[in-house]
Amino acid sequence: MSAGTLRPGGRTARVREAVREATLAELGEKGFEGLTVESVARRSGVHKTTVYRRWGSVEGLAADALDLAGGEPWPVPDTGTVEGDLRELTRLVLTGFTDPATGSIPTAFISAAMRDPVVAKALRDFFAARHRQSAPIVERAVARGELPEGTDAADVVRTAVAPLYYRLFISGEPVDETVADRAAATALAAARAGAFVTPA
Amino acid sequence: MSAGTLRPGGRTARVREAVREATLAELGEKGFEGLTVESVARRSGVHKTTVYRRWGSVEGLAADALDLAGGEPWPVPDTGTVEGDLRELTRLVLTGFTDPATGSIPTAFISAAMRDPVVAKALRDFFAARHRQSAPIVERAVARGELPEGTDAADVVRTAVAPLYYRLFISGEPVDETVADRAAATALAAARAGAFVTPA
Repeated sequence: MSAGTLRPGGRTARVREAVREATLAELGEKGFEGLTVESVARRSGVHKTTVYRRWGSVEGLAADALDLAGGEPWPVPDTGTVEGDLRELTRLVLTGFTDPATGSIPTAFISAAMRDPVVAKALRDFFAARHRQSAPIVERAVARGELPEGTDAADVVRTAVAPLYYRLFISGEPVDETVADRAAATALAAARAGAFVTPA
Repeated sequence: MSAGTLRPGGRTARVREAVREATLAELGEKGFEGLTVESVARRSGVHKTTVYRRWGSVEGLAADALDLAGGEPWPVPDTGTVEGDLRELTRLVLTGFTDPATGSIPTAFISAAMRDPVVAKALRDFFAARHRQSAPIVERAVARGELPEGTDAADVVRTAVAPLYYRLFISGEPVDETVADRAAATALAAARAGAFVTPA
């Protein structure tokens, strides 16, 4: 679903959406190194001077695309069990990086955030939103009696997804469904053992 | 300890060590963006043409510094319990990033690896070495009966350190001793529950 359909019409919203889609497409094809204001203007059909005036730079374009992405609906898993939900969650992250059409986009954002503070801020906000959006997985599990009261939802989510990001961006090791499933199982085992309950 | 003291003398070894120390110092002060062959030559006292001929580029300098770093002795914790060892391990990683004098060096390597395949390869090798060097923590724990037979050592280590890297480089959240200790406790709880034993 595109953000445009969520926002009531308006020329400004349409221009923003066109620029954002063009930014994502360019990032997917060329990475952050290949992103230029000119190519986004050409692809979006929005005049270059407008793009410069409103977004300022490639960093501004990347940050705005991230900002909109963070506000979009996201298919938070709801399988009926915390085990199923965490497995779905780690597979969503995996697919986000391995999808042939869009897999290079998150990599471009993370790479851009490492060298630009405006993109870094947008990425922080994006992940904070994802952590909030994923919290119901843990809250439902606590309500069902699957996890201890007081389990920190964000920490369960961080633990489930961190090994995937660690392999992709730090140790440079491969990721696949086996890795994703083990990361989910690890977070679940630790959560069941009470590792995410802050001592009183 | 410097790599120079490990290698028997020789002019080549001394030049390599001087260049490597200068590379690390420059990375610590200016990051990968600020690294130049000229500044490394000036700082090391090695002639610029020699540096160019032997290392080729800033990427070559960064990769070689990482290569030597991976081969250096590393204080693998040995506290007598797996709980203590994992806590020491995550605190070592934390200190590696928060030390005022050297904390920006690992960040520079990770940033450089994201944009250059030669540095990326050197970083992969570096982390593979660290995983191997840390394996005794888990092997001793299995021998002491603290963890189940067949526990995957590298996976315990990845799980212990991944949340720190995730916060530092992906979600952009703060890290401190509480975060490090919880990451260690999480890996331990999951390991005790058998999450890192591959099913037969």
